[in-house]
Formats: sequence, structure tokens, C-alpha cells
Amino acid sequence: MSLARGRPYLAIPGPSVMPDRVLNAMHRAAPNIYEGALIEMVATLWPDLKALACTRQHVALYIGNGHAAWEAANANVFSRGDRALVLITGRFGEGWATSAEAMGVQAERLDFGRSAPIDLDRVAEALRADKAHAFKAVLVTHVDTASTARNDIEGLRRVLDDQGHPALLMVDSIASLACDTFRMDDWGVDVLVGASQKGLMVPPGLGFLWFSEKARATTRGNDLRTPYWNWEPRAFADGFYQHFCGTAPTHHLFGLREALDMLVHEEGMEVVWARHATLARTVWAAGAAWSAQGAFRLNIADPAARGHSVTAMRLSGADGARLRRWCEHEAGVTLGIGLGMAEPGTPAADAFFRLAHMGHVNAHMVLGALSVMEAGMEALGIEHGSGALAAATAEIARHGKGEMPGAR
Amino acid sequence: MSLARGRPYLAIPGPSVMPDRVLNAMHRAAPNIYEGALIEMVATLWPDLKALACTRQHVALYIGNGHAAWEAANANVFSRGDRALVLITGRFGEGWATSAEAMGVQAERLDFGRSAPIDLDRVAEALRADKAHAFKAVLVTHVDTASTARNDIEGLRRVLDDQGHPALLMVDSIASLACDTFRMDDWGVDVLVGASQKGLMVPPGLGFLWFSEKARATTRGNDLRTPYWNWEPRAFADGFYQHFCGTAPTHHLFGLREALDMLVHEEGMEVVWARHATLARTVWAAGAAWSAQGAFRLNIADPAARGHSVTAMRLSGADGARLRRWCEHEAGVTLGIGLGMAEPGTPAADAFFRLAHMGHVNAHMVLGALSVMEAGMEALGIEHGSGALAAATAEIARHGKGEMPGAR
Amino acid sequence: MSLARGRPYLAIPGPSVMPDRVLNAMHRAAPNIYEGALIEMVATLWPDLKALACTRQHVALYIGNGHAAWEAANANVFSRGDRALVLITGRFGEGWATSAEAMGVQAERLDFGRSAPIDLDRVAEALRADKAHAFKAVLVTHVDTASTARNDIEGLRRVLDDQGHPALLMVDSIASLACDTFRMDDWGVDVLVGASQKGLMVPPGLGFLWFSEKARATTRGNDLRTPYWNWEPRAFADGFYQHFCGTAPTHHLFGLREALDMLVHEEGMEVVWARHATLARTVWAAGAAWSAQGAFRLNIADPAARGHSVTAMRLSGADGARLRRWCEHEAGVTLGIGLGMAEPGTPAADAFFRLAHMGHVNAHMVLGALSVMEAGMEALGIEHGSGALAAATAEIARHGKGEMPGAR
Amino acid sequence: MSLARGRPYLAIPGPSVMPDRVLNAMHRAAPNIYEGALIEMVATLWPDLKALACTRQHVALYIGNGHAAWEAANANVFSRGDRALVLITGRFGEGWATSAEAMGVQAERLDFGRSAPIDLDRVAEALRADKAHAFKAVLVTHVDTASTARNDIEGLRRVLDDQGHPALLMVDSIASLACDTFRMDDWGVDVLVGASQKGLMVPPGLGFLWFSEKARATTRGNDLRTPYWNWEPRAFADGFYQHFCGTAPTHHLFGLREALDMLVHEEGMEVVWARHATLARTVWAAGAAWSAQGAFRLNIADPAARGHSVTAMRLSGADGARLRRWCEHEAGVTLGIGLGMAEPGTPAADAFFRLAHMGHVNAHMVLGALSVMEAGMEALGIEHGSGALAAATAEIARHGKGEMPGAR
Repeated sequence: MSLARGRPYLAIPGPSVMPDRVLNAMHRAAPNIYEGALIEMVATLWPDLKALACTRQHVALYIGNGHAAWEAANANVFSRGDRALVLITGRFGEGWATSAEAMGVQAERLDFGRSAPIDLDRVAEALRADKAHAFKAVLVTHVDTASTARNDIEGLRRVLDDQGHPALLMVDSIASLACDTFRMDDWGVDVLVGASQKGLMVPPGLGFLWFSEKARATTRGNDLRTPYWNWEPRAFADGFYQHFCGTAPTHHLFGLREALDMLVHEEGMEVVWARHATLARTVWAAGAAWSAQGAFRLNIADPAARGHSVTAMRLSGADGARLRRWCEHEAGVTLGIGLGMAEPGTPAADAFFRLAHMGHVNAHMVLGALSVMEAGMEALGIEHGSGALAAATAEIARHGKGEMPGAR
Repeated sequence: MSLARGRPYLAIPGPSVMPDRVLNAMHRAAPNIYEGALIEMVATLWPDLKALACTRQHVALYIGNGHAAWEAANANVFSRGDRALVLITGRFGEGWATSAEAMGVQAERLDFGRSAPIDLDRVAEALRADKAHAFKAVLVTHVDTASTARNDIEGLRRVLDDQGHPALLMVDSIASLACDTFRMDDWGVDVLVGASQKGLMVPPGLGFLWFSEKARATTRGNDLRTPYWNWEPRAFADGFYQHFCGTAPTHHLFGLREALDMLVHEEGMEVVWARHATLARTVWAAGAAWSAQGAFRLNIADPAARGHSVTAMRLSGADGARLRRWCEHEAGVTLGIGLGMAEPGTPAADAFFRLAHMGHVNAHMVLGALSVMEAGMEALGIEHGSGALAAATAEIARHGKGEMPGAR
Repeated sequence: MSLARGRPYLAIPGPSVMPDRVLNAMHRAAPNIYEGALIEMVATLWPDLKALACTRQHVALYIGNGHAAWEAANANVFSRGDRALVLITGRFGEGWATSAEAMGVQAERLDFGRSAPIDLDRVAEALRADKAHAFKAVLVTHVDTASTARNDIEGLRRVLDDQGHPALLMVDSIASLACDTFRMDDWGVDVLVGASQKGLMVPPGLGFLWFSEKARATTRGNDLRTPYWNWEPRAFADGFYQHFCGTAPTHHLFGLREALDMLVHEEGMEVVWARHATLARTVWAAGAAWSAQGAFRLNIADPAARGHSVTAMRLSGADGARLRRWCEHEAGVTLGIGLGMAEPGTPAADAFFRLAHMGHVNAHMVLGALSVMEAGMEALGIEHGSGALAAATAEIARHGKGEMPGAR
Repeated sequence: MSLARGRPYLAIPGPSVMPDRVLNAMHRAAPNIYEGALIEMVATLWPDLKALACTRQHVALYIGNGHAAWEAANANVFSRGDRALVLITGRFGEGWATSAEAMGVQAERLDFGRSAPIDLDRVAEALRADKAHAFKAVLVTHVDTASTARNDIEGLRRVLDDQGHPALLMVDSIASLACDTFRMDDWGVDVLVGASQKGLMVPPGLGFLWFSEKARATTRGNDLRTPYWNWEPRAFADGFYQHFCGTAPTHHLFGLREALDMLVHEEGMEVVWARHATLARTVWAAGAAWSAQGAFRLNIADPAARGHSVTAMRLSGADGARLRRWCEHEAGVTLGIGLGMAEPGTPAADAFFRLAHMGHVNAHMVLGALSVMEAGMEALGIEHGSGALAAATAEIARHGKGEMPGAR
């Protein structure tokens, strides 16, 4: 007998749980792509996509996944042989560096390990050393989906400015977009990379580039830009099909419209971010309690350096994998595997796992997932500190206290 | 800011959460109702519906809700002026009595209050007093959806047999079907009333009557039977349309097929019942802890008399309604209102509420709901005993321990 | 190889093709049935349902099919032993009579065959003969789904008035509702019976009764009225659940809301009726051409007596069935079987078939169906007159001529 | 009043009408992308994708549209400065040339106009002239979606072989895949480009490359290959995510699985092709009749050079656009605009239009569309030859004659 039968909760860090409204919006006959409703609807997407990233500058949408969006960013910004400084705090930072390198970019890595955010002093030092301003851009993940470290983008911009370094600031926000606060223009971000399947609550298949006028101006004529990746016709299309370099991803666009309605218009980005912050604190409160005894640890020690959309955790030995399996097969919660924290396939890799809390997620889903983890550790005899659920519910209760006076 | 945005959990006692597979099966073009796939599929429903109730006897399906199924049962069994003994343990027992009365049946009520199951001794006494065997049937709810009291049907049959009373045993299992163990033939039930929207995980719109050969034989020619309610052509149809007395409820039937696949073929009824039993104990474990301090109480004191699909609870004053509102608006869980426990609209009514755990429900959903309730009581300053979540997770962990040895 | 693979067109007279919007509206999680969005939405249904029937009087909605709606009408209007005059022009008129009879009503039949509408003179004569005004009601189908004869309801009212007969005028519009013009109040109809699965474009499972204040007033206290059929609490509900005598048919209601949006608010009933009238004339134009040679005939000779939602046709011998099978298996169009035109199972029955053009139907669907029939008759060597498609397209073209001046 | 209200038929050449089954398969919760059902399902796609193209060689799947697939083909095959011979018979041939050029390939064009297929003699001549075998590849569309000219790929291979030219044969079958017969291995095709939204009946968002071992071997180390376009890890993945260079397009994959079930397993490719051939002949039969009088013409004069999935047509002046608008707004059929046949925005461009008959299409849909066009020309007073529908139904009837003996 399994207690998993029921509505499963997929708590992996993307693809995330999608609202029924989004799936329903995608369940439709193919539309006319030459005139009519689709064309009118798509025109409404651009301002809302900009609102999502807090920018008044430019946005290009790609049919593709996050890797496609990386490649698009690289292709638009670099020529072969250009140099980039890549700040690495997890597997996905490394992935972007590898992508750029394979395209002919000289990627100089600053690696900060797998359990910490970037160290702004080390970045300042590296920039200072680049007297010739050879770095055309600095690449960084906002939140690395693997380590779940969150980097201080506002601080990074300050470092660049302090050093008077003209490099473009390029940020991968795939894991944090629409979850963690992000203010592209205020923070001086030049290129922002996003994707549909996490905070945006749409199936995998769309990538996004937001880019500054500065990025646009300084990268004209670079030699990696190909027709499909070229952001110019996508962002400044003469005809509808240019937005997509060919046939539009019709069904994803309808899903995206619905998701933007929910995020930008109904809830509002500030509230979306506040919701994720509270739910993240709820997870961490449980994590702190579990850590008091036994091997359980949150991967990122400093709360200020943790992403709000997903939390990497570890146990010892293969206990991470055992717990994941128990939660999925016995209780209906699928946790994410650890990624890039240890050599895949080794016992060490099985210690890590991740709990996502991104996108269409509420108190019930998060508290339920934490309770299931607690039950799983008990069932499997995994030593852990006590009081985790009390700490988690207290966090939720604290939020709810000042609210909804009508209910009192 | 609300922490309810995300996937809501509707924990009212029906309609219940439906599997995506059921909704998908219902999302289809209209089928041919004269020949082909629909006709072939419907032929497979009848044996599975019988397996659901553990009977080899007869089943009739109605387009209608639970009230329709009551009326169908009454219309088939009674003639005007017939007498029935109705055992009442909540609003729905009373509802069935009222329905029968309005049709001309003399319903003699035995009322056991709103917080207890039937008392078999009192039933025995009433039957003994009916020396003329005037009661044509005994009517009882298995689990009353309002009080959530569960009655001992097997014991009731024994009482009837002990008294040598020939009355038909008619049971309303609308709230318990496919949740609580039910063995129609073993328990000597003559007429069983069910509906689609609770344990069966299909939208409201189908009612069911299972009936014994004895019930069939002894009720021929009664004068309340009308063409729409008549179970004969429905259960023993010559042509397809007779099963439904006209046009088939095409889309519900496809949903029902999918639900029966899940319940009868994939999970198996014994396992379905065991899952509900464990989840119910999980709820009660939390309830017991909460009850240790303050006004919180489970409505039914004796665990053996509690239904496995829904649990009625109360606080004091309007705290029940306050907590319901908090859980829905702040955390994404919709609890059921109290029903029939106090005069509607009075403050007393607002003390009661219900948590359903019926149908497509797993450990994550239940633990999440209990955690949300705990957070709500804290946020609202409602006094309650401690340790509820630990008790609940322990219940889940206990189950999971002997299981899945591969994960250890 | 079959040319049927592709999007099939189910052209049977109900269930009819449903708009994607309706199916999408029904694809949703279970809603709260105690408060919130569902309750607010349902309040908007009643005025639109009245608009559909052109009445300002009363409406009751039933979970059930057309037979349920017949029984509901009978139960509300009659007491046992009451007399009714039933005007029969096809199998469904006979079906209503049988239903009433089985409930204890004395149904006096006036049968007008299977290929003609009612003869108002014969009705006048029957009413005149009823000097005692024993007929409590006159029952008639507006369009009999089987024969597809359409009866003159306005004329029938005049006859009743001319004779000064107080009988209630009860009309079954299941096959014509939202297809043929119907003005309940203007035509003095007292009880109107409808269902969801034809012109209303919603899956089978809802029946409707519209009733006049006169019908309401004169039938109080009749003895066939049971709780489920009683229209009083449904039409004049104190609480939400009374509208449905128990649990609401949640998913159908959302589908109904969408369908009413399309019919009443977006297209408008007058335009809906005009569309069906034009499409019906298109079918008849083809039929007239086919009839010029060979055995093909439209079942109803007089165009003024043909329903606008479905057209019964015949060939000779088993050619009707052969053609039906060819159209379905070779070309993707499922025609309706003949119903009640000859003894089922006999060769004669296989001569008949029906083409429905009800609900969500446009020029493409109808012209395609007629073309497929033409191809089928050719493939099967069935003799038929020529020029059918030219006549049909001419009918469509005639309509389109005065329209859309912008396109010229 | 419009006769378009009903189920619309989108007859543009992609995206095409999708089966309900495909849309339903895509309407699902996000799956686990690390283990379980998705991974197992995806493993079944590759052999079926190869069966679709009649190849035993290699296939790579891309999240992207047709333009992405062009770019992927270019990136894998070419280095900067490589030369290609591009055979152009419509806008999409030109588009591919432009794409290659923009990536640094020297594209030598052979243009055959907009109303004819390639001339193999001219191709032979061009190859003969390339004594140095400078052309690394010959690029050609199988069916150009704009002109609807179909090219003889088998003949083209013969020409290459006759000339002993080692160039790779690269074919764009986006418009013809799963509609027109295509035998990649038999015809010696080295790179085949496809997309999801036409004959494959899946929403836009997937591109495909099938490639020969020869293509693979001779293109290693070219310098246009970037990580996202590189076909090696996609076709020969070590880990699941490599198939997609990152996150899988989960929902499209489920849709693709369903479509391949229908095409490869249920109907079979030979039968799929035969169905499209018959439906294409049906369209042409009508076209031939219309051409007998007035300006109507099929764009490609030679039937052997017409694609089986879409047919370009023209009238005079703006009559093409007038007819398109009439069909859409008055009758429910959306025809495709003319593309690349004249300067966009000029009156000449408005003469052209296209009727697609690709993918999920049957006799009813095609005959209905032709009937609607006939009605439109009549309504708009556009001169045209007579007998088109008789010719079309005769084509359908001819097919159906030898079939289904059971129906006779």
C-alpha cells in the first residue's frame, strides 16, 4: 500500500507545478498565425514581460529552453575570441561558461564553490586586474538551480561601477525569475536570461532575453550572431513572424499570456516576490530545526545567500536518495535530485537533494512537503533535529497574523 | 499578500479533488450513442461497479445527484403508505427520511444525535416492537457526511437477522463509497445508494443503486416506481439507451471508466480502503493532540465510529468559521462548513467545520492540510494542544516503515 | 485506406458537436459548492436561460436527460388519473405519452403519423369534444427528433384559445431549443421541456423546465410531485443547493455558462435561429435535388413543417444504413440512424437516417456533410438526382451576398 | 448573421488541425524530468521518428520551429565560407538560402520561379560545372509551403550520382513530412529537415533533423557547430537531458508520442501518404473545373509537381483576399494567404491564396472547404468554371468504391 496515490506534488526545480488556467489556455485548436486574435494577443505580451523583469528596455522571446537562451545571449553579445569573466556558484554557472567556450569565447572562471555565493571582493580584484578592459562581459547566475546559492546582483553592479569597468553585466535568472526580487534597470543589468518552466509556470519551451540599449549598441556586428539567435528582429519586428524567426510557438504563447495575467496583473510582482520569500523562510525554518541533530544541512549556510525558489539540502551517505524515493513512492512528493554537488553516480551524490518552492506554490504545498520529509526521515530512521514543523507553521502563522483583519 | 496563491486544495466533503486522468477522459468530443466505442466501453462499467461495492447482484446508474439516488431507492422499494425505520446520525440521515416521507412513506425515525453512531440495542428494540413486520425497510447512512459518524452495517444486519425481521436493509454510502470498507453481499445489504462526486472522484452528476435479488423480488409492482426511477430496465437493459432511460451521460461515463480503472484495477479496493484508513488515523492523531487544550474537539469521540473519508471538528464560538476562512484565504486549503450540527446562521453553527480526506488524496495533501490548520490556529490565537503535527507524521511514518524495503 | 481519418463530424441529432470553449470550461478542478465563484456564476444562469426560451416566467434545472425532464414535467403538472391530450408526430411524442401513462396519467393520443406535423383541425375537434375540459394539458413536441416534423405551437395556442379550452400547453423542445425560433411567452406555452445536449451544445446531463405562472398556480398540490422533481424549490430556491435538490452539477454548469455566453450574449438568439434556418434550407436544397431521381426522399414533404436542427431522410431497402456506414468509415461523417420510422431491426428501418445540423454548426460542416453523402451515394451506386451540391452552395451563397460589404 | 459560427476549419498550411488526442496528451501536469515515465516514453520516440522518414540512420530533435531546424542543419553541415547549391522553387527555398548565407555560407542559387519544380537538367548542368566539387551540399525543399511545388528528390539523387558529385543532399520536408511519400534512405538523402506543426499534427515548437552516417562523418569539426545546434549529443545522448541540450520540451513530447502512435502505428505511413494523395487529387479535380472559366488557376500546372499537403491557387486582382475573407467570416474556413508569390502589400499579392490539406484531415473537411470556396465565389460574383464539386466528390467516390465490401 502506498500513501502516494492522490494528487502528486512535483517539487523539482523546474518544470514546476502549472496552474490549471495555464494548461487550459494551451488546450486549444491551432490559431491563424497571419491575422486575428493571436497577433493581437502577442502584442500584449511584451510590456508584461518587461514588467516581470522591471525593465523599460528590450525583450526577445525564443522557442527553446534555458540552454538555448544561454546560447542566444552568447551569440548576440560576443564575437569569437572575445573574453568573458564567468562567476560560478554551481553547475549552471559552469554550464554557461562551457556554452560560451564552445562557441569560441574565452571564458575566465571565478569559481566560488558549490555552497556559497560570489565574493564581491574577489570579483573586484579580477576586474581591477583587467586593466585593458578585455572582459566584454561578466556572466553570473542570479540563483544557481543546482547549489541554490543566490548572488547579489545589485552589489555586483556596484563593483563594476566602482572599478569603472565597462563590461556588460549578464545574468542568468532562469531559476529565480518571478520568484526572487529582480530589478533589471535599477540594478544595471545588461542582459538577462530567463525561461518559461520555473517561476513563469509555463511548460518548458520558451527562453527569454531582456537586454539594455547599451548591450544592444555595443554588440552590433559581432560575428557569432546567426539569424535564429539575432535579437534585433525579435525585439524590433517589422512583421509578426519576425518575433519568432518563423512560426510562432502558438500554444506556449497562450499559456504565457495566462501566466502573465496571474503574475503581473492579478497578484503583482512585489506580492509574488513576498510570497516566495515567506515560503522560502518556512522551508529554512524547518531546515534549521532538522540541522540541530544528525547530518541534515541546508547547502547554503547564509540565509541572505539562498534563493527563494529552491533549496538544496543534504543528508549523509545515500540518505538523500533514500528520502527522495520514500517521499515520492510513499507520500506523493517528488523532490529534486542533487545536481553538480558531487560526481554523479557516486555515493556522495546521493546525499544531496532539493526542494523547489517556485511559481504556483502556496502554504499548503510547502507545509505538506516539509511534513512528508519529516515523516520520511522518521520512517527511514534518519536522525534529525526536532521541531521542524512547529518552526515552519510558526513562520506561516507569523505572516498570517497581521493579515486579513476581517477574519478576526 | 496571501500565501494561498498556488494549487488550491479543496478539502470539502464532495465534490472531491479529481485526478487529472478523469478530467482528461471527460475532455472529448461527443461520441456516437448508437454504436461503437461508447457502447463497448459502457459494457465494461457494470462488473467494475459491482466490484466497487463487493456485490455480485445488481446495479443501476442514474443521471442525478445523491438526492436523486435517494429518491430512486425510495421509488423502487416503496409503495405509498409503506413504513420504514430510519436510523439517523446526522443531517443526511434526516434528509433521506424527509425524502421518503415526502413521497408518501411513513418514516419512523430513530435519532441518535449528531455525535454518535447508531445504537444497535435501540435498533433491536424497535425491530422487536414491530411484531407485524410493518417496516418494509431499514434506512441508514453508512457515514453521515455531516456528522461523519460511521455506522456498523454488518452489526445492523446481525440485529435484523437476530430479530428475524424481514425488512430490507438500505444503506446510503454516498460519503463512504470507495473510502471505507464496504462489503454489500457479505453484510447482507439489500439496497446501496452511492454517488460519483466523493470517493469515486468524478464530478457530481451520477447516482448509483446496487440492489439485491431479494430487494428486486419483494418490490415488484410497488406504486411509487416511475419510468425514470425504475431500476429494472437500467440494470437489465435490452437496448443501450435503457441503461440510462434515454440519452447516456456520455462524458461522465468516460470519467467513471477512468476512475474505476484507478480504483478497481490499478490500486485495488482493499488497498484503497487501507489508504483511507491510514490517512483518517493521521487526521485523528492531530485532532487528539489539538484536543488536549482549548475547545478543539473531533465530533465523534469513538474512533471506531468515525468515517474514513471526512472528519467533523469543532472549536468554540465562531472560531470554526474564522479558521476555515484563514485556511482558504491565507494558505490554499478549503475546509468544509459544519452542516446540520447547529441551527444554520447561528453562532453555534460557526463552531463546526469538516476536513475531507476522500478519494484522490495522499499523505502530502493530508499533512499539508493539518499543517495549515495548525498555522491558522496560531495566527488567529486559537488555543489548542501541541504536538499535532508530530503525531500526524508519526502515523504516516509508521505506515511507511514496513514498506518499500528497496529504499532502505 | 480510409478517408475518414481526420477530425470526425458527428452529425447525429444529439449529443451534438460541442465548442472547444464549452469543453474547456468543464475541464476544471472541483469548486467550492458552499460559497464563492460557483454560487455567483450560477446566479447569472437563470436570466439567460429565460432569454433562451423568450420567457419572463420561471425555470427549473435538473440533473438528468430528456426523459428526466419529461418525467419532471409530468410530476409537476399531473395527479394520478389526470387526463392529457398527447399530439404525436414521431417516436418522441409517443415516448412522452408512454412516460405520462406509466406515471398514472390517462394519455389520449392523437397520432399524425411519422411524416407529417399535427393537423390543427383535428386538434380543434378533439378539444371541442372535451366539453368537460377533462384534459388538464395538451402535450406536443415542437420538433420530434425522430421524424423531424416541426409543429406549429403558435397555431396550437390559437386553437386552444379559440376553443376556450383551459388545458395547459406543454411543449417538448429538446430537439429544437436554441435552433428553431421559440417564443414561450408570446406563444402562450405553459410548460417547456428542454435538455443540454443538442442546440445548447453541452454534454448530456441537464434537463430544463420553463413554466408559466398559470402552470405553477394550477398544479399546486398535485399528487405526483416528489422532492426531486418538484420545480418550486428549484425555481424559487432559498439556498443554493435547493436549485439542484442537493449537490450541484458543477461541471455542467460551467459548460452551460459558456454556451449561454455564446448563444445569448455573443451571437444573439435571433441570429442563432437565422443561422439554423439557412443551414436547414441548405440541406433541403440538396435533398430536393437528390429526390428528383431514385428513392431518396426527405421525410417531411412540407418545408414549413420541417425542423431546423435535424432532417430525417430515407432511401430504399438497406441503402440508408449502407450510406451511413460509408460516410462514417470512409469520409468522417457520422449520420444519425432512423428512429421509430419502422420496426427496429427490419430491413425497412435501414432505409432511414438523419442528418443533424444543430448547435455548433456552420456552413463548412453542413456543406461537407452533404458532399460526403453525395460521394457516398456515388461510391455505393445509389441512384439519386443531380445538382444537389450546386443547390446547396447556392443557398449558402445567397445568404452571403448581401452580407459583409467590406469584403467587396 | 454569419454562417461561420460553429467548429472552424483552419486550412492554412501550418499550424494544422490537431487531433483531440494530441491536445489531451499535452494537457497534463509537469512530469519528473530526471527519472520515470517521461524518460521511458522518450526512448520510444526515436525509432518511430525514423520510421516516419523511412530511415535507419540518425535523428535529432530540437526545441524550435522550422527556421531553427534550418539553422541547425546549416550549423552542423557547414563551416564558414563553405559553398552550397540551393535549388529554389518558392519563398521557403529562398529562406533557407538566406539563413545559410547569414551564417557565412556561400549560397549559389538556382531559382526555378514560383510556379514550377526544379529542372533536373539545370541542376545537372550546375553540378557538372562544379568540377572542383566545391558545393558541400545541395539544398532543396521537398514541397515549398509557399508555391506548393513538389520537387523530385529521388531524381535529384540520381542526378548527383550521375554526375559523381559528392555533395550532401539536404532536403527541407517541413511542409510535406507525413503527407507526401518520403523515403530518406532509398532516396539517398543526407540531411532531412522537419517540424512538428504540419503533417505531424503537433503544435509549433519542435524541429527535427534526420541525418545520414555520411553527413555525420563528413561534417565533423566544422566551425559553425554550436552547443545548442550540435546534433551529436542529441542523437547519441549519454544522459537524457543531452537529447534536448537541457530541459526537455515535456508537453510537446507527449503530444508527439500520441501523433506518432496515430501515424506510424495505427494508420501506417503508406496509408497516411495514400490518404493525402487522394485528398490532394480531390482538391485538384475541383481546381481543374474552376479553371475552365475565369481567372482561377492552380499555381502548379503539372499535377506530378504538386505537393499533397497544400495547394496554392490564384484568382485575379484582390479576389484571392476577398474569397479568403468570405470563407473565414461567412462560412468557417480559414484559407492560407499567398506567400512570396508577389510583392507583399501589392494588389498582386492579394490574388493568391492556399488551401492546406495536411495532417489530421479527411474527406469531410476537404469537401466542405471546396464547397465553401464554391459558395464564396458565387456570393462574391467571381467568375469560375462549373462542376468543381461533382469532380471532387467523384474523386472521393472513386476511392471509396473498391473499399469496405461489408457495407454493400
